[in-house]
Order: sequence, then structure tokens, then C-alpha cells
Amino acid sequence: MSAWFREVAILSLDSRRRPAMELPPPNGLVTLLTDFGLRDPYVGIVKGMVKRQNPRAEVLDVCHGVPPQDVAVGALFVRAMVQRFPPGTVHVAVVDPGVGGERKALAVCAHECYWIGPDNGLLSAALPGPGHDADAREVDMAHLRGIPCSATFHGRDVFGPIAGMLSGRKVGFPAIGPRAARFQVLARHEGPAHKVLFVDHYGNLVTSLSAAEAAARKVTGLRVAGRFAPLRRTYSDAPAGEVLALVNSYDLVEIALCCGRADAALGCSPGAAVEVVTGGSA
Amino acid sequence: MSAWFREVAILSLDSRRRPAMELPPPNGLVTLLTDFGLRDPYVGIVKGMVKRQNPRAEVLDVCHGVPPQDVAVGALFVRAMVQRFPPGTVHVAVVDPGVGGERKALAVCAHECYWIGPDNGLLSAALPGPGHDADAREVDMAHLRGIPCSATFHGRDVFGPIAGMLSGRKVGFPAIGPRAARFQVLARHEGPAHKVLFVDHYGNLVTSLSAAEAAARKVTGLRVAGRFAPLRRTYSDAPAGEVLALVNSYDLVEIALCCGRADAALGCSPGAAVEVVTGGSA
Amino acid sequence: MSAWFREVAILSLDSRRRPAMELPPPNGLVTLLTDFGLRDPYVGIVKGMVKRQNPRAEVLDVCHGVPPQDVAVGALFVRAMVQRFPPGTVHVAVVDPGVGGERKALAVCAHECYWIGPDNGLLSAALPGPGHDADAREVDMAHLRGIPCSATFHGRDVFGPIAGMLSGRKVGFPAIGPRAARFQVLARHEGPAHKVLFVDHYGNLVTSLSAAEAAARKVTGLRVAGRFAPLRRTYSDAPAGEVLALVNSYDLVEIALCCGRADAALGCSPGAAVEVVTGGSA
Repeated sequence: MSAWFREVAILSLDSRRRPAMELPPPNGLVTLLTDFGLRDPYVGIVKGMVKRQNPRAEVLDVCHGVPPQDVAVGALFVRAMVQRFPPGTVHVAVVDPGVGGERKALAVCAHECYWIGPDNGLLSAALPGPGHDADAREVDMAHLRGIPCSATFHGRDVFGPIAGMLSGRKVGFPAIGPRAARFQVLARHEGPAHKVLFVDHYGNLVTSLSAAEAAARKVTGLRVAGRFAPLRRTYSDAPAGEVLALVNSYDLVEIALCCGRADAALGCSPGAAVEVVTGGSA
Repeated sequence: MSAWFREVAILSLDSRRRPAMELPPPNGLVTLLTDFGLRDPYVGIVKGMVKRQNPRAEVLDVCHGVPPQDVAVGALFVRAMVQRFPPGTVHVAVVDPGVGGERKALAVCAHECYWIGPDNGLLSAALPGPGHDADAREVDMAHLRGIPCSATFHGRDVFGPIAGMLSGRKVGFPAIGPRAARFQVLARHEGPAHKVLFVDHYGNLVTSLSAAEAAARKVTGLRVAGRFAPLRRTYSDAPAGEVLALVNSYDLVEIALCCGRADAALGCSPGAAVEVVTGGSA
Repeated sequence: MSAWFREVAILSLDSRRRPAMELPPPNGLVTLLTDFGLRDPYVGIVKGMVKRQNPRAEVLDVCHGVPPQDVAVGALFVRAMVQRFPPGTVHVAVVDPGVGGERKALAVCAHECYWIGPDNGLLSAALPGPGHDADAREVDMAHLRGIPCSATFHGRDVFGPIAGMLSGRKVGFPAIGPRAARFQVLARHEGPAHKVLFVDHYGNLVTSLSAAEAAARKVTGLRVAGRFAPLRRTYSDAPAGEVLALVNSYDLVEIALCCGRADAALGCSPGAAVEVVTGGSA
């Protein structure tokens, strides 16, 4: 479990909701973000269930490599998707250790898109800041009559079908269910201590230090595993084999190794402590 | 090779075919299930070959993580796809250790969908039970004139193009080729001995014990690697770190570890023996 | 870095360009080939950025398993895609160790398709032989006004949006930018020494020996790691557990193990020397 989001809180949307939020017309696009991995047919079967509800839906994989059951990293990926898809897209996000238990199923409208998934904090990363509209609905299971519901695979039995219905306008967003006045939120980690949150495909160490905090504190680099990684602009701004830090596409500071893997070179994994170096302290 | 399907038999469809089976109109959707993995461009090239035959086809990945050349696990995945896609979908399934040899290429109509792949038992998992219609055709290679055929990659050279033609209605199902009166069938494993068939992405141990058999025998749990896994309803119905058994989305009983990986905790891999515990015998 | 392509040269297209090359109408299909892997949402976000520019685009994954930063293997995959997709397809190919640096962004028209990616040799594998038309443009960044450009993720910020614009006919190919009279080309490795270029999903060892050279030299097999692999037609043309060589779907000779993994059995990895055995020399 990463540290970037770490506190599970309960949020009421009531305070931020305005009476007549404008709902984007669904555009027929459905995306999938899960921790299902790719060795099983789980992902493909969710696609089929979307298409059974809406044969005209276009289904796109975003990522199925969220570390198993790691809601916090999943939330980080949700946040990275905001404003990267056309308005009216229906995003299905499933990282669901509580499947079959008491947790609710949610549908959220935020940032001109729809977000469907379990109520465990995952979707909270899609919420806009104060002053912007968002709406959240608790999925009414009556929509799923006729679809057998297992205790283990709600991507197939709940989230996929609901996404299909919404994308195909069989069910309008307000009809999905009653307002979820309260739902779980993963609170953002704030310094001063920073950590490695996760390691990406290239072996880059993504840390909890945001670009904004790095700028505000005039950070000149990071120290990790005894090595100093100076803050640079891009991967090739260091000699081959040298570690460096840079603002990555999540707007977080990451530690990379030019022409190599930082995780292997530094022996680092998620959770490793990161020391922030500012101004004259390198 | 898993034990769930283990016997290769020859089935004649003649006895179950009725004179005028109704064929679902192809809906334009083509899905892919293979053991090709994702590190090579093999999968992508199959998609291109589908689109060359039918530029309007929509191609969806189901799964490319079937263990290499493991027809039995592939067949289990085929079975999991039945009735999860819209009628008229064309499914391409390729796990093909005999590529370039004597095995035939098949097209099957069953469960209101089409299934294209090698004649090695893989597609037999799509066949309906007695009393339901199915039709199987041996692909006539004359349809593929003008497409160079390699000895190693029939996904690209045969199955993809045929799926494109069928999905785009360039070739009707009966015209694909002559009836395949006989083709290979993987016979389902029946008790009493049970085994781990495969390990999924989460480290869950999927066993050969069906939900139906578990219910009929009043199974209360499984014993594997010296540990008792009580039968529960869902993953969170055990304390963290405890093993449990549950009916999974394949309608098979699997062994899981709450908040962890059962394969690592139990040191189990495919083929491990599973002891069924009933009534008073725990 | 593989040996198949190894020399970075600078090519001028001017000599092969004819005055009025015919441009295929974009067909709405956009494919993605990258070294992004699948554990992060990078690939999915590129898809979203394509769709934001062209909501009607159909986006297909070709492969995201190019070894990280290995432009030469990426180029081999590009070559394997040629003539496998419908005319007018827009291919995005990103293996981009120089992201954020001085390298240009290219758009190439060749083989009736479009190819978008960094100018580092990757796209040179899409170029046709002498006497065939090709055109290459340096992407004018003015098209990307309004899209924030990071120093680390041009798949999202440059290549995806340009592909969306081109596929949706918002920008015609000639308007993408000025002719790239010179761009980087990976030169093909020519014998006599041959090597293992990469290992595929099945553990097959793909070598630098082309089918054409094997035929011209009357090759009867390859020797690698002390074992002789006789040249056969397909995987099942050897007893189980025996190594063999065959012409694969890249038109290269590969070394395989019937019913097993050659890489594990031979202890071989990319770069291993391969000895060519001809006529009487086995």
C-alpha cells in the first residue's frame, strides 16, 4: 500500500454539489482500469458484459497492472486519467479487495466524465477541487436484475454492465441510484517525510513528492539509498548510469537512472524513504 | 497441462445437429484469446489481419496469457467466455502447439457466437450440452488465396483473416467449409481426485472441483499442502492471512489467502493434489 | 540493444521521393507500439489523447513489450507490421530514450500507412525499398498549442495527439510539418557473424539470420551454446525436447525447442553468438 493516499475518510458531497449540475452526454467510450492483470480472461469478460448492455460501446484498456488490491496506487492512476479522455467517457475502475462484502458500488460524475467502481476510496481521486461540480450515486442493484451476481467478480456482474447501460444511455446517470451523500476518500499524503510510492515499468522510483511542493521548497534533488539524485528536466539530462530526479507525468518527482533501471541500481522498492534536499544542502 | 480437461476424444456433431440451426448474424465484434503473450507484436498483427478483411470490425483482447501451449487451460478460458458476449460475436481462440502440422482449422457456431481456432480440443469447451444446437466447419483454405501462409503463425495467416471475413459477412458460416463431422474434444476431468489446475493473477489456486460437485457432496473445505481451507462465500470472509476456499467466477472452487497470495503462502503450483473435506471430516 | 539493426545513419528521402506521392485517406484506425509496458496507465492515457483529438478514432494495441529503450527491437516490430494493416492506418510507435531532448518528432507515409514517432531510427523500418514512394515530415509543434508538453511523456503530449489529428483529418499529412529531408536510420546488420536478437514469449531465440540469407547459403542448421539445431519447417518437426531452427514470422531464422523453452534449455539470451551451418558442415 503506497503512502501517497493513506487515510480513508468519509466525504460528503452535499456541500460541494450545486442544484443543477450539467451532465455530459455519454460518448459511447468505456475504459477499464483494474488490478486484474492479464494472465486470466477476467478483463475480457468484463468487456463482453459491457458490450452485452451496449453493443455500440467502444471499450479501451487503460491499465490492468495496478498492484493487486492496492487501492492507493489505483487512485493515483485514476488521477492521471483526469482530463485525458473526451467528455462523456465512462471509466470503470476496479481494485476491490472488499468484493462480496458490505462496500457499496458507486457511479461518480466528475471532470466531464463518469467513473464506476467500488466505494473504497479508489474513485475519490477523480473528484475535482472545491468549487467544481461532482455528483456521486450509489448503484441500485435493481438495474442488474437478470444478471447473476457472484460474490467474487463484480467487474463482470456489476461494474461492467452498469458502465454498458450508462454509455448506451439505457440508464441515465441520475437513475443509477440515490445520491451517495457520503463515500470513502483516500486522503493525500502531505510531507514532510517522503517515500517511494511505486516502481514503474522502466524501474523509475515514483515518490510522494509533488512537483508543486518541490517548486515551493526549491528542491535541488533527492537522496535515496545513500545516493544523491539531482533534480533535472528529463531522462537524458545526466550521463549514462547516473541517477537523477525529475518531475514525471504524474506531476510527482521520480528517481531515474539514465539508460538503466533505478530500482535495480539502488536496490529500492515501494516504501523506501526519500530525503528531500533543498537549496544549499546537497 | 491441467487436469480439468484431460482426455482427447473425437466428437461427432452429427447426432446433436438439427437440420436447420439458426445462425446469429455476425455483429462485427471479433475477440482474441491466445497464448501469444504480450511481449511480441503477434497479437497486434492478428488484429491488423482481421481489419484488412473487415475494416469495420471491432477487435477486443480477451486474454493472451494462456500458459504457452496449454490447450486445457485455454479451453477453461473459452468456457468462461460463453454467454458473456453479445450474440453474433466472432471469437478467435489460438493455443496451437500443432501449427503447421496436420491439425485442421475449425469454425464452430455455438451459444449464439462463432469460435475460430485449431482443431485440438480448445474449441470443444464452447460446445453446448445435449439438446442444444451447434455446428462446426472445417475451414476451406481456398478462402485464404492471396494471403501467404507460414508454417508457424496461423493466427495471422488463417484464423485472423477467416474471423475478419465472417465478421464482415464476406463469407457466410456455412460457406467457410464442409461440416467437421468429427473433431477433437477435451473431456472434463471427473473426481474423486482433485488438483490445482492453474494459479491466477492474484495467486489464487483454481482447483478441478466444480461448484456443483462441492454442493452435491456437501463440501466444507479443502486441504492442500497440509492446510485446511474452509469453504466461505467471498475473499473477505476470513481474517487477513488465513486461507479459505470459495466458489470462483469459473464456477470452480479455488483456494485463496485473505489479503495475500495463496500460491506463495502454501508453496503450491499447478498439479498439486487437493483433498476434499466433507461434512464431519474437517 | 540488438544487432539486427545497429548502425545509426542519416537518410535523405529526397532522392527517393517523387513529386506527387499519393496519400492514402486515413481510415480512422490508430495503432500503438511502445516500450511502455502494461503495469502503468501510460498506454491508456495515450489512447485518451488520441480520442480527444478524434473521438471517432479506433485505437488498437499492437504491442507494449518492446524491451525498454531498445530502438532496434522496436524497429524489427515496426517492420513486422508493414502490410499487415489496412491502408490509411495511423501507427504510433514510441521507443524514445531521447524524450525531452533535441530529437525531432516524425510523421512518415510509407506502405500506404502513416507512422508517427521519434526520430531515432525506429520508423526507418517502415521505409520501403528503392523505387517505392515514401514521405517524411518533421512535426510542427504549433499543432499542439493548448496541450501542455512535458519533458518525459511525448506519447501523451505529442505523438498521440498528432495521430488523433491525422486519423480524424483535422490535419492533412503535408500540413503536419516541413519535409524531414534527413532523418535517422538504423542500418540492417549483415553477416557473416550472427547473433540472438531477442527472445520471444515462448522462449524462442530470434536470430539475425534472414530467411533469404539462409536460402542463399543453403543453411542446414544453426549451432548455439554447443547444440546443433537442424533447420526444419515448423515447431512440431522435431521430437519433444529437441532443439530445431525454423524460419519464423519475421522472416528470420529462430531456434526453438519442441514442447519447451529454448532460452531455458540452452541458457541463451540476446547477444549470444550463433554459428551458421551449411551444406556438409553439420
